[in-house]
Amino acid sequence: MKTSDDSNDRTFPFGARKSIEDVEEGTTLAPKFDHDGLISVVTTDAASGDVLMMGVMNAEALLATIRTGQAHYWSRSRKRLWRKGATSGLVQTVIEVRIDDDQDAVWLRVNVAGAGASCHVGYRSCFFRAVPMDQAETRPFRLAYVETSKVFDPFIIYGDAPNPTQL
Amino acid sequence: MKTSDDSNDRTFPFGARKSIEDVEEGTTLAPKFDHDGLISVVTTDAASGDVLMMGVMNAEALLATIRTGQAHYWSRSRKRLWRKGATSGLVQTVIEVRIDDDQDAVWLRVNVAGAGASCHVGYRSCFFRAVPMDQAETRPFRLAYVETSKVFDPFIIYGDAPNPTQL
Repeated sequence: MKTSDDSNDRTFPFGARKSIEDVEEGTTLAPKFDHDGLISVVTTDAASGDVLMMGVMNAEALLATIRTGQAHYWSRSRKRLWRKGATSGLVQTVIEVRIDDDQDAVWLRVNVAGAGASCHVGYRSCFFRAVPMDQAETRPFRLAYVETSKVFDPFIIYGDAPNPTQL
Repeated sequence: MKTSDDSNDRTFPFGARKSIEDVEEGTTLAPKFDHDGLISVVTTDAASGDVLMMGVMNAEALLATIRTGQAHYWSRSRKRLWRKGATSGLVQTVIEVRIDDDQDAVWLRVNVAGAGASCHVGYRSCFFRAVPMDQAETRPFRLAYVETSKVFDPFIIYGDAPNPTQL
């Protein structure tokens, strides 16, 4: 575990979480990684504002994202650093990195290369379905498609690579 | 633990996670709650598209959100159901609820009442600071304010209630 004494270590880019005031209102990046060493990330399209995906980063992914300007995540299914688009070419160029008040969540605003999709199922956004709110008595709740067609064919892009979705 | 046999139970609103194809491309809401019974939520301003906050919901919070059209979360600091704005008046009226491909994340598009803020520190968005990407050699990384002034005074709204931020 790195501590505040590491702030002079040129290899360690994050500050110590010394006080709530510093974390909430200071100007030092002091992210909170959870027990698995991960922090939540939401990624939006810089042009449309749409949420494209949610994921997680470890410290290495956050550092790589800031250094390279390309979105990196931690792949929980593959258990390794994941440069988004490494397989698909759907690279996310980061326009802005933001951190929230208690510094336990990251917001990336990105431009997506190629077909402009970020969802492994083939849609532009992973959030391609809505939950209509006028179904109070329907069981189970139904979903409605918001995106009407896929942007790419996952089989052509990913072949028979394992699907990251888990039941 | 509820199972597929509960789908006829009028009190249980979620479908079973029977197959990856159903979860990813079906039209039944079958959310995946984690080991703590929680699902990640990102909330954006329906007008500006800005990310306001990230949080979590339990099944009760998700159901209450769909039923009432007001955003409900699970408060990890207070360990109870949390109707956003119950204390502050900064209620979030839900315009749309979306679910992602593997149904382990929720996106809420909302309009915020009153001063229009969603951050307990007083800013409009919890993500009121950015991490500039032109500081490859700076240690630790610095933050830059994106929002220049608070929308409300937290002390006036919350008094001496415990701060939810944890180090």
